[in-house]
Amino acid sequence: MRTFMDKDFLLYTETAKRLYAAAEGMPIFDWHCHLSPKEIYENRQPDNIAQLWLSGDHYKWRAMRSYGIEEKYITGDATDYEKFCAFAEVMPFLIGNPMYHWTHLELQRYFGIDRTLSAATAPEIWEAANARIAAGGFTPRALIERSGVVCVCTTDDPADTLEYHEKIAADASFACKVLPAFRPDAALNVELPGFLPWLHRLESVTGSTIRSFDALKTALRTRIDFFDRHGCRASDQAFAFVPYVPADDAQIEAVFAKAASAQPLTAQECDMYRTALLRFLAAEYDSKGWAMELHIGPMRNNNTKMFRRIGPDAGFDSIGDAPVATGLSRFLDSMAVEDKLPKTILFTLNPRDNYVIGSMLGNFQQGGISGKIQFGSGWWFNDHIDGMREQMRTLSNLGCLGTFVGMVTDSRSFLSYPRHEYFRRILCGLLGDFVEQGLYPADYDTLEKIVRDISFDNARRYFGLQ
Amino acid sequence: MRTFMDKDFLLYTETAKRLYAAAEGMPIFDWHCHLSPKEIYENRQPDNIAQLWLSGDHYKWRAMRSYGIEEKYITGDATDYEKFCAFAEVMPFLIGNPMYHWTHLELQRYFGIDRTLSAATAPEIWEAANARIAAGGFTPRALIERSGVVCVCTTDDPADTLEYHEKIAADASFACKVLPAFRPDAALNVELPGFLPWLHRLESVTGSTIRSFDALKTALRTRIDFFDRHGCRASDQAFAFVPYVPADDAQIEAVFAKAASAQPLTAQECDMYRTALLRFLAAEYDSKGWAMELHIGPMRNNNTKMFRRIGPDAGFDSIGDAPVATGLSRFLDSMAVEDKLPKTILFTLNPRDNYVIGSMLGNFQQGGISGKIQFGSGWWFNDHIDGMREQMRTLSNLGCLGTFVGMVTDSRSFLSYPRHEYFRRILCGLLGDFVEQGLYPADYDTLEKIVRDISFDNARRYFGLQ
Amino acid sequence: MRTFMDKDFLLYTETAKRLYAAAEGMPIFDWHCHLSPKEIYENRQPDNIAQLWLSGDHYKWRAMRSYGIEEKYITGDATDYEKFCAFAEVMPFLIGNPMYHWTHLELQRYFGIDRTLSAATAPEIWEAANARIAAGGFTPRALIERSGVVCVCTTDDPADTLEYHEKIAADASFACKVLPAFRPDAALNVELPGFLPWLHRLESVTGSTIRSFDALKTALRTRIDFFDRHGCRASDQAFAFVPYVPADDAQIEAVFAKAASAQPLTAQECDMYRTALLRFLAAEYDSKGWAMELHIGPMRNNNTKMFRRIGPDAGFDSIGDAPVATGLSRFLDSMAVEDKLPKTILFTLNPRDNYVIGSMLGNFQQGGISGKIQFGSGWWFNDHIDGMREQMRTLSNLGCLGTFVGMVTDSRSFLSYPRHEYFRRILCGLLGDFVEQGLYPADYDTLEKIVRDISFDNARRYFGLQ
Repeated sequence: MRTFMDKDFLLYTETAKRLYAAAEGMPIFDWHCHLSPKEIYENRQPDNIAQLWLSGDHYKWRAMRSYGIEEKYITGDATDYEKFCAFAEVMPFLIGNPMYHWTHLELQRYFGIDRTLSAATAPEIWEAANARIAAGGFTPRALIERSGVVCVCTTDDPADTLEYHEKIAADASFACKVLPAFRPDAALNVELPGFLPWLHRLESVTGSTIRSFDALKTALRTRIDFFDRHGCRASDQAFAFVPYVPADDAQIEAVFAKAASAQPLTAQECDMYRTALLRFLAAEYDSKGWAMELHIGPMRNNNTKMFRRIGPDAGFDSIGDAPVATGLSRFLDSMAVEDKLPKTILFTLNPRDNYVIGSMLGNFQQGGISGKIQFGSGWWFNDHIDGMREQMRTLSNLGCLGTFVGMVTDSRSFLSYPRHEYFRRILCGLLGDFVEQGLYPADYDTLEKIVRDISFDNARRYFGLQ
Repeated sequence: MRTFMDKDFLLYTETAKRLYAAAEGMPIFDWHCHLSPKEIYENRQPDNIAQLWLSGDHYKWRAMRSYGIEEKYITGDATDYEKFCAFAEVMPFLIGNPMYHWTHLELQRYFGIDRTLSAATAPEIWEAANARIAAGGFTPRALIERSGVVCVCTTDDPADTLEYHEKIAADASFACKVLPAFRPDAALNVELPGFLPWLHRLESVTGSTIRSFDALKTALRTRIDFFDRHGCRASDQAFAFVPYVPADDAQIEAVFAKAASAQPLTAQECDMYRTALLRFLAAEYDSKGWAMELHIGPMRNNNTKMFRRIGPDAGFDSIGDAPVATGLSRFLDSMAVEDKLPKTILFTLNPRDNYVIGSMLGNFQQGGISGKIQFGSGWWFNDHIDGMREQMRTLSNLGCLGTFVGMVTDSRSFLSYPRHEYFRRILCGLLGDFVEQGLYPADYDTLEKIVRDISFDNARRYFGLQ
Repeated sequence: MRTFMDKDFLLYTETAKRLYAAAEGMPIFDWHCHLSPKEIYENRQPDNIAQLWLSGDHYKWRAMRSYGIEEKYITGDATDYEKFCAFAEVMPFLIGNPMYHWTHLELQRYFGIDRTLSAATAPEIWEAANARIAAGGFTPRALIERSGVVCVCTTDDPADTLEYHEKIAADASFACKVLPAFRPDAALNVELPGFLPWLHRLESVTGSTIRSFDALKTALRTRIDFFDRHGCRASDQAFAFVPYVPADDAQIEAVFAKAASAQPLTAQECDMYRTALLRFLAAEYDSKGWAMELHIGPMRNNNTKMFRRIGPDAGFDSIGDAPVATGLSRFLDSMAVEDKLPKTILFTLNPRDNYVIGSMLGNFQQGGISGKIQFGSGWWFNDHIDGMREQMRTLSNLGCLGTFVGMVTDSRSFLSYPRHEYFRRILCGLLGDFVEQGLYPADYDTLEKIVRDISFDNARRYFGLQ
């Protein structure tokens, strides 16, 4: 029997342990997250562990609701201590959930607390953790530096001023790069009520008047230039599925005109618009050498009552099951045939589509760029031992695991860097199994290179991080 | 090497063995099955093991057909002994099939027979098993009592008189509760030839005339009251997919009028009708505190020739692949937004949808009810080691395994209770792996509580069993 | 730690080793492959290992592109040695990919080379391998004979003259049977540009004029008779999904007339035509006692630019995600209800559909034929340890593993027979796990029979190989 989450956590073979020694010290390049540049810049000291853990983490909220905790203790007006105790009460019943491991990794790594969290230990851990916070080292920048992070890519709207990115870049005292990433969801979601207000913000930030799809493209191009000058290396877009409904310019302008005058659009019109805009954006990304991330599969804001009460990103999203293969293939091909397909990272939220995505990569790889089309690591509902291992098994079965750009936190929390450790341990565990099961030679030089590559070096090269 | 199906069957770690000691003695609450209350009441002595095993079990029929056994020896006019021998001949080639384990668990637990079944051992086992049957203990009630079952929920049509439930309840000599469960498939399947005959039965049992959808709702409401007075705690409905096509009252009445006059309905009309009826029923269930089971995914009666010859539930069903996420989300949300969503248990027959279903739960959980929305255990074509383990891995990865209401037999056979043992061994094996792999602390008090909860206590609380 | 790919490769238990001893010597019946009968007849000596490995294997091309190798070194004008070195450079990074194992199995079994392939070892292995080739034993026939192959079924167009099959059959010096298999994809793909040219070839080979669907059926029937006289035992058809859109004769003739005059067809018309033709063909196959293979799921030629440059089957195919359950069920039922359903082997390229396919079998099994409806082994993107093991787990969970007809290479390469060894090792590993985990008795006579059956005997019986 192994000890709970000791130094050999997830490392079940001697080879895994040896390989993890090569991974452990590698820096972190967190190329996709939802951290707030404003919070990084302001660098405030948190009051207590509940603020760090429970003020914005919808994973935790969701788990608490599953157990039957009243909303008062989740997003309501209970005290921080009450919320912490409610979370602690749930913890033991989350057996097998990655949050069980994340929570205890965070307690161990940042707070030096080895006890397990439960209703019984909550008061003691509350005291101990808060004493550590009071002693310092828990501001956003301190947490980033303690975690060995050399670069993070945030997620930013095209209309964002990037003022905090500028301020952080101007501050020589903080070594970690904080780069923007271009997330044009507001531009793509033409059918949502937020489209026109967003369009006005874009007009404002670009000082332009946007009365046509063509003008929208021009405005977005200036923002892409602006992001590029701020070091942007990646874009990100999220879809239930990737649409592909080609249309001519006149049709797209007609759809835009309807949207601009707040007329309702058909699903067909939305897909035509999104196809055209995504094709424009992809070509721009390619011209900049950016990577295009496609996050495919979420079904958001399923609970109308709670959406009205708390808003989006509050733990009411789930996995959709729309078909993905045809639209994605046709979109990628439409770019490749024009030699305008950017580096692309495909994420699937529905793990049933791992093999569809994993085999899609191979259709569009290109000489001269190692792993040009990537399979994004197990994401959101797949960010656990089974999900990450299955994503890597799929990638290794279908393609070239050695070129994989690896893990991202995709997180809103400054405490979530141990997820890179979690990933690296799982990676080393998998490679260790290959070796010890006689499926790969015990060639440690190559194995350690592969581990370092997937932990950091592949992403560094792929995104052109200086 | 482990001995075949010995006392440590499926318990591969010391922790698993220790946890199973906590599970082993827990009573069984079989909250979803297809046992006949009439057979329980009449309590007839079976003639031989073939009657117990082969007279109605379409799992076994299907396996025999796969091996190439002629239908004569399956549902035809061969003798019981011939059928038994044909089944025995197939058994060794069902390597890896759960039936291999169920069969030998049943031989061990009920008959005290440790030999393995094959063509060679068939004559000897036939004699030994039948001698045991003749010695008693094989009537329905004896088998239920020997199995430690404290409550079963049968599956009953709204038009059922529940006369055998009443008779069993009136018989103080039988301790196990036999409660009805409300299964309104006949009401929902408005497009099938059985709809109008069923409607007449409902008119008859309610003493009403049903000329409108509104009248149908009134009649069903009286039956829900009636079932509730007979201790009903759950409803059950089965779908290829959960429809969600809202319509107004006039539209639904028009569909009902067409159905009532035996005019054919479009798929759209059927979905509108089903949506309206299911929304009505869900609200009623919620008002009674019943749990709503949704069994999603079967494709039934695929073989027309055999359907004409043998009828339904004869081993010619399989797994469908309709999309499920959107309709299910919209239906559940439509109830939640009105505060009328009952406790709900989602079963998926297609294991590719485990992650869709497992993530759907979290959208609609609610404070104050532990695990209000449940992920039903591996069902029918998933009722095996891989399927049950995968369902629990999914649930633990995405939600709160500790609140899981656990196993049901879903069976027509009085010999199928060892499936609860099978499940509990798999559960303890999984938790044992978590502990011995260092993924969960060796906190046996909590672990044993979780095991007892999932084996029995969670379901007892969830269904409000007294 | 196990030694890399030693004699116990993939055999992790003593039982697995013992069972593999029963499998190892069994002959190979490769009942589905893409070998060229012309190449078998001509029996040319290859120049070097690059010709054997890299001249036509799109699996390898794809892997090289994923790593970033330039097309020049894949399908371009680089020298054979340059291409070999490029392939060798990629190899270490294909960790976990089945190609890593195939490559080293081929080096070990055919070349007697135990070193692992990499950029460093490429020059040495190039020399050693080419010396072995020069010493003989690497012609198509020699490789087939060295591999213990007693029969291969090639894949042949209905308009093929089968001249090379005839020539091989006439050559008594070559013991392996080379049988044709009927692949009417060109007839089914009525919407593709190749349809009319193919129709003319069929007219030519049958000496008939085909001006109607009825005439097409007549012509195909003569080819089925012709193939049957040449020993054909199987047909093969590939689909993104199996269509089922019934139509009457007049409708089908109208579709054929449009196709014959090169008018574009709607998707509905194509599906009607394909349904009618497939139903005709299935009945013919059944009358001959042939097995019907359905390969379901590929999405082909995704990369238009590379298709124009290199053509089909060049590594630009991937896995589709069309729904498959309903159409397949309705098609099979339409044959079964008329007592014209042939022996059928269902392959799925999308492993998410394993349970749909694995449960579909049971709907249409038939007394008197052991495993009449088969679940084809893990294919193409599933032809690896996980994929083959998962296919067998699914089959064993849902049906009767003991009747499985086992492995095929599905290959264009004369070096690919070690995939049968790979499969047999995985099979024995799985059965060994069952036994050593206490899930099946240590009854070696039965286990060895099952191993021999799945390795060879089941297929021999199923296809009626003399």
